[in-house]
Amino acid sequence: MHKLIIPPFSQQAARAVRQRLDSLAKVPGSLGSLEELAVRLGGITDTDRPVFSRKAVVLFAGDHGITGKGVSATGPEVTAIQVRNFLAGGGTINAFCRNAGARLVVVDVGVADPLDGAEGLVRRKVMPGCRDFSEGPAMSRDEALACLQVGIDMAREEAARGTQLLAAGEMGIGNTSPSSAIAAVLAGAPVEAVTGLGSGISSADLARKTELIRQGIERNRPNPDDPLDVLAKVGGPELAAMTGLMLGGASLRIPVVVDGFIAGAAAAVGIALRPELRAMLVGSHSSAEPGHALLMRHLGIPTYLDFGLRLGEGTGAALLFPLIDAAVRILGEMRTLAELEIRR
Amino acid sequence: MHKLIIPPFSQQAARAVRQRLDSLAKVPGSLGSLEELAVRLGGITDTDRPVFSRKAVVLFAGDHGITGKGVSATGPEVTAIQVRNFLAGGGTINAFCRNAGARLVVVDVGVADPLDGAEGLVRRKVMPGCRDFSEGPAMSRDEALACLQVGIDMAREEAARGTQLLAAGEMGIGNTSPSSAIAAVLAGAPVEAVTGLGSGISSADLARKTELIRQGIERNRPNPDDPLDVLAKVGGPELAAMTGLMLGGASLRIPVVVDGFIAGAAAAVGIALRPELRAMLVGSHSSAEPGHALLMRHLGIPTYLDFGLRLGEGTGAALLFPLIDAAVRILGEMRTLAELEIRR
Repeated sequence: MHKLIIPPFSQQAARAVRQRLDSLAKVPGSLGSLEELAVRLGGITDTDRPVFSRKAVVLFAGDHGITGKGVSATGPEVTAIQVRNFLAGGGTINAFCRNAGARLVVVDVGVADPLDGAEGLVRRKVMPGCRDFSEGPAMSRDEALACLQVGIDMAREEAARGTQLLAAGEMGIGNTSPSSAIAAVLAGAPVEAVTGLGSGISSADLARKTELIRQGIERNRPNPDDPLDVLAKVGGPELAAMTGLMLGGASLRIPVVVDGFIAGAAAAVGIALRPELRAMLVGSHSSAEPGHALLMRHLGIPTYLDFGLRLGEGTGAALLFPLIDAAVRILGEMRTLAELEIRR
Repeated sequence: MHKLIIPPFSQQAARAVRQRLDSLAKVPGSLGSLEELAVRLGGITDTDRPVFSRKAVVLFAGDHGITGKGVSATGPEVTAIQVRNFLAGGGTINAFCRNAGARLVVVDVGVADPLDGAEGLVRRKVMPGCRDFSEGPAMSRDEALACLQVGIDMAREEAARGTQLLAAGEMGIGNTSPSSAIAAVLAGAPVEAVTGLGSGISSADLARKTELIRQGIERNRPNPDDPLDVLAKVGGPELAAMTGLMLGGASLRIPVVVDGFIAGAAAAVGIALRPELRAMLVGSHSSAEPGHALLMRHLGIPTYLDFGLRLGEGTGAALLFPLIDAAVRILGEMRTLAELEIRR
C-alpha cells in the first residue's frame, strides 16, 4: 500500500474528449452531465476514446460484530446466505451485471461462515468477521491493511484479465454502521446526520444504532488524520477491501465506480489516504441512505442517477455501466458537424 | 383515430409485480423508483413478467415554416442533413440505440427536402414541412390527422414485427416552438414559462421566439378543449406522428417511452385526446428545456433520469432502455426471500 502510486488525472485527455464532444453533430453541451462523465472517463484513462468492453463488479463480503447489538433487520447469517445466492446467480447484482454485460466477482474477505464448498468464491478471508466496534476496535491496523491489500490485489488481477471498468460492491449485514462511523469521523459530520435505516430497521432501532455508533467513536477515538486508524477501529473488512480496489484501480488508470453509502465510506478512506484518488473515481447514484449525499458532496464526486436505491451490493454502480457505455460510444460512433457541413 | 381503443392499465398485473418485488431476496422497496417503473410496465403490458427483448425508437422527421423567422441556431436544411446522418448511423440516437440493442426507424412525415435516394427511410410524407404558425395554422385538421395516422400505423407495424418497447423520437429544426405553443395551450402555462433555448439560441433570440409563439397562439386561437385543433394550428407533422405512435402503442399494450420536451408536448396532445393514455406511457428524463418539467408534472408522468439533456431525437428515452431491462430482469432472475429462507 505505501508504495502505491496514483497517476494524475489527465487534463490533456479530458480536454481532447471535450473538444471531440463539441465537434460532434449535436447541439454543443446538449448531453449535459453525460458529457461531463465522458470527459472524466477520458481524464482517468488518459485517452480521448475510452472503451469499456470488459467490466466487472468486485463484491467483497464481510461480517460485523456489531450485529450482535441488533442494528440490522436480518440476522448476520444472511451475509453467507447472500454470498451463496450471488454465486448461484440469484441476486439483484447478478441481474444487473448480466444486464450490463459485466462479470460479478465475489470475494470473501471477512465472512464469519467458512462458506464450505461455495464454488466460484474468491477466498481471501483475512478474518471470520470483524469485532464489535461499539466495544473496541473492529480490526487491528495489520488486519485492516491485509483487507486493503486484498482489494488492491483484486484490481491487479482484474487488470491482468483485461478489465477496463470496475465497481466495488459489498455484502455484509451490519455494514451501514461502520460506514456511518467512517462518514462521521472523516467528513466531520454529526453521527445522526449520517445514520439511516440501512436494511430497513424501525425508528426505535435507528436511535439505538445511532447511539452505538456514537459510543464506538467515543471508545475507539479514531484519529481523523490517520485514515487507516479510522478504517481499522470503526470500519470493517469489506470496506477496507473496497478502499483497496479503488486505490488499485486508480493506480492502473481503471475507473472504479463508487456505488452507494458503503462504497462512499470506502472512497472517503481512500481519498483521505491518497487525495489524488478523488479525480479517478466515478460516482454512480444518490442513495436513499441519508449520509450518502453528504459524503459525496464532502468528497466532491458527482453522481448521475437518482432512483432512491438503498440496496448496496454494487447495484447502483452496475446500473450506471450501460450509461457509461453510452457516454463514450458517441466519441467514436458519431459524425462531426464539419463532416455534415452543418454551420452553427 | 376515432375508433382507437386504449385498454385499461392493469391494476391486477401491477399488483402482481409489486408482490413479486416484495418477495425477492432484497430489502423490500430498496430499488426505489426502479421498482415503481417495473410496476408501471407490468400494468401497461398486463403481465407480471414483462420482457422487452425487441425495442425500437421510431424517429419522425418534419420541417417548420416558423424557422423562416430565425427561431433556431441552425438552418432548416439541417433536418434533412440529420435524417441522412441517422440513416448512415452517425447520430447520437444511433449510438444510444446500438448501446441499448434497439432498432432505429426513421420516418419522413413532413420533411421539406424530398430526401431523394435516402436508403432505409420510411417514406410517409404528408407535407413538405408545415406552415409558419406565427402567421396562421401550421396544418389543416386533415393534415394533422394524416400525420397522427402515420404514427398509429408505425406502432402497428412495429407490433407486427414483435417490438415490445417503443420510444418516439424526432428531428425537426424549429420544433421546440410548436412544442412550447402546445404546452402553453394544453397545460395552461404562460408562454415564457415553457419556452427555452432549444438548439442553443441567444437570449435576444429567445425573446423573439417567445413573442412569435405568443403571436401564433393569439392569431390561431387554438381551442384547448379540442386537442386536434391545437395540434393542427400550432403543432407540426412529427409532433402529430409522435402522438399517433403513443396512442397506437398504448392501444396494443406496448409501452411507449416519452423522451424530452417535444415528446412531452406530443404526449400532452395524446392524453388530451384519450385520458387513458396517461397511465400507458413511460417517462424517461428531465430535460434541460424549462417547459419539460412543468409539462410532465401537468401530465402526471414520472421521469427517472436527470442528465440535463436537451438534444431530442429520442436520446433520453434510449438511455432509459437498459434501465427498463434492469427493472424487469429482476422479476424473472432473482431468488426469493422464501427460497433463501431469509426471515425479516
